[in-house]
Amino acid sequence: MKILDIGEFGLISHIKEWVKKENPEVFRGVGDDTAVISLSRYKYLLFTCDTQVEGIHFLLSFTTPYLLGRKSIAINVSDIASMGGTPSFALISLILPQETELSFLSELYRGLVEEGNKWGVTIVGGNISRTKGPLTVDISLLGEVKKKHLKLRSRAKEGDLIIITGHPGRSAAGLKLLQANKSKDFSELTSAHLSPTPRLREALLIASYPEVSSMIDVSDGVLQDLGHILKESSVGAIIKEDALPITEYLKQAAEVLGEEAINLFLNGGEDYELIFTVSPDNSEKILKKVKKETGTNLSVIGEINDHFSNISLITQSRDKINLKAGGWDHFKDIK
Amino acid sequence: MKILDIGEFGLISHIKEWVKKENPEVFRGVGDDTAVISLSRYKYLLFTCDTQVEGIHFLLSFTTPYLLGRKSIAINVSDIASMGGTPSFALISLILPQETELSFLSELYRGLVEEGNKWGVTIVGGNISRTKGPLTVDISLLGEVKKKHLKLRSRAKEGDLIIITGHPGRSAAGLKLLQANKSKDFSELTSAHLSPTPRLREALLIASYPEVSSMIDVSDGVLQDLGHILKESSVGAIIKEDALPITEYLKQAAEVLGEEAINLFLNGGEDYELIFTVSPDNSEKILKKVKKETGTNLSVIGEINDHFSNISLITQSRDKINLKAGGWDHFKDIK
Repeated sequence: MKILDIGEFGLISHIKEWVKKENPEVFRGVGDDTAVISLSRYKYLLFTCDTQVEGIHFLLSFTTPYLLGRKSIAINVSDIASMGGTPSFALISLILPQETELSFLSELYRGLVEEGNKWGVTIVGGNISRTKGPLTVDISLLGEVKKKHLKLRSRAKEGDLIIITGHPGRSAAGLKLLQANKSKDFSELTSAHLSPTPRLREALLIASYPEVSSMIDVSDGVLQDLGHILKESSVGAIIKEDALPITEYLKQAAEVLGEEAINLFLNGGEDYELIFTVSPDNSEKILKKVKKETGTNLSVIGEINDHFSNISLITQSRDKINLKAGGWDHFKDIK
Repeated sequence: MKILDIGEFGLISHIKEWVKKENPEVFRGVGDDTAVISLSRYKYLLFTCDTQVEGIHFLLSFTTPYLLGRKSIAINVSDIASMGGTPSFALISLILPQETELSFLSELYRGLVEEGNKWGVTIVGGNISRTKGPLTVDISLLGEVKKKHLKLRSRAKEGDLIIITGHPGRSAAGLKLLQANKSKDFSELTSAHLSPTPRLREALLIASYPEVSSMIDVSDGVLQDLGHILKESSVGAIIKEDALPITEYLKQAAEVLGEEAINLFLNGGEDYELIFTVSPDNSEKILKKVKKETGTNLSVIGEINDHFSNISLITQSRDKINLKAGGWDHFKDIK
């Protein structure tokens, strides 16, 4: 059997089985985007990594080494942020063809350092290896979180509201516009793809509220990542088409692409927005506070129910349809 | 300019310039194999990563996925050990062709977990990415060290003895025998290459002595790695051919290969033995203790002097020759 046949999440299930080691210091291990390790009485250490492979995650005809550097840091910061944590130290592992230009690497590092400085990340080392394959940047990032602020995917409760930051779908639209050579009037969408902003400030505020029961960042797509919360919390969700923050701008892009905007919103990946769940009593207070402090739009898109791992959508015409948690699978889908 | 033209260490100098960020929490950053970060009043956090690329670092015609897993962990453990530290938590970043077999990965993980268990390493997560290039395993590893036991490369002093564990040259001999299809009678040497043993127990004992002024592990070759100590400590070294622990077995292998055993010893990489320097007064005590506790052979091979970055060799015929710090450069040498 090849990994092509079982997909990324199938493989992760196997790895969980292969590793299954009990260590009382490890609060969350294999299976989460970020490992959670006991650091002191009040703090956890967070430890994550993510990879950008040329030809798979980026094309140098669309991006620049500078933007690649920025994005490589940003997506790791987003993983730390989604647990409610603050990023701290990074190692940069470069896997390079021999003919890589020094000027490429100086631009890559300009992006890595600039984005790192923006979020308090210090680059403390790394490794350089040669490859006969594509240029690959693998970053591992440390962070920490107060134990009482840690947010997981596994604690959403029936009745909780489902809230999302910003306007997902922009990154997927930006990528598709670039691929179709139709990106001219959509620089905001291509930027969302090439240079995403991790929601660190928003995440730290959101995580400070005990009423927030779960949180995740949207890397694989809204349905897929909401699906992780549902599966790990043993709950379901109902979301309302009317409530989805789909902008006119995204609708215009969808028209140019001959796609449905709602598909871009629900299934497009790499937005690095946050999805979180919160008990309804205090949701107003949190929404107001986060909007006021960060200027970022937040939308209540639905509610948690008891239909295990199931997502229903109430359409604008009041129909109720079942959605399959889709999203991008690294091995099964050709992007 | 391409990285091929400046080599790995040339590139690292550039990266130091590009990153140059002052952070009082970072005791050692870019340029060392392992980052050293303040963790508490008495402890440092250690943070390192290393990569194995198919076709560059390993060939599946020589090794197995199980042994690849073991070696991938072992070489990272060696980096933590060389600072006097204890390894703790690892992330496994897999960069995989779509057609990778699940059975390959289960064997890889059997090796990763087994070697991890041997040295107290818990695998806490990682990442899976697709590539159109070679299979690549990138591991990042955490560890910690008591501040008073931390060993660096930068503190060797004139008059210190230079001591080495075990019998370097075995790994390079093993690889060359495999490449020449002449490995049949040399399983100990091929094992040294395919499944090296990090000197963690030895390193922890050695690091407990304040008389030990510097330490490094032999990943690039004895001359190259001793060269790092000399450069960073602003000292030189004189070593004696008579004192080098070159076994009859290595000499036999060298003969089969048509090479000089001393070249394998001085320039062969990937031995993961330790080189350390110690003030002569207490060296006897340390040598005895480490040999007794671990059974590992230790040899005094020379002495630190004030000839900056220069290594002289006293040959068996009492000639004194200057050696160039050689060793393997990932980008300049074709292996």
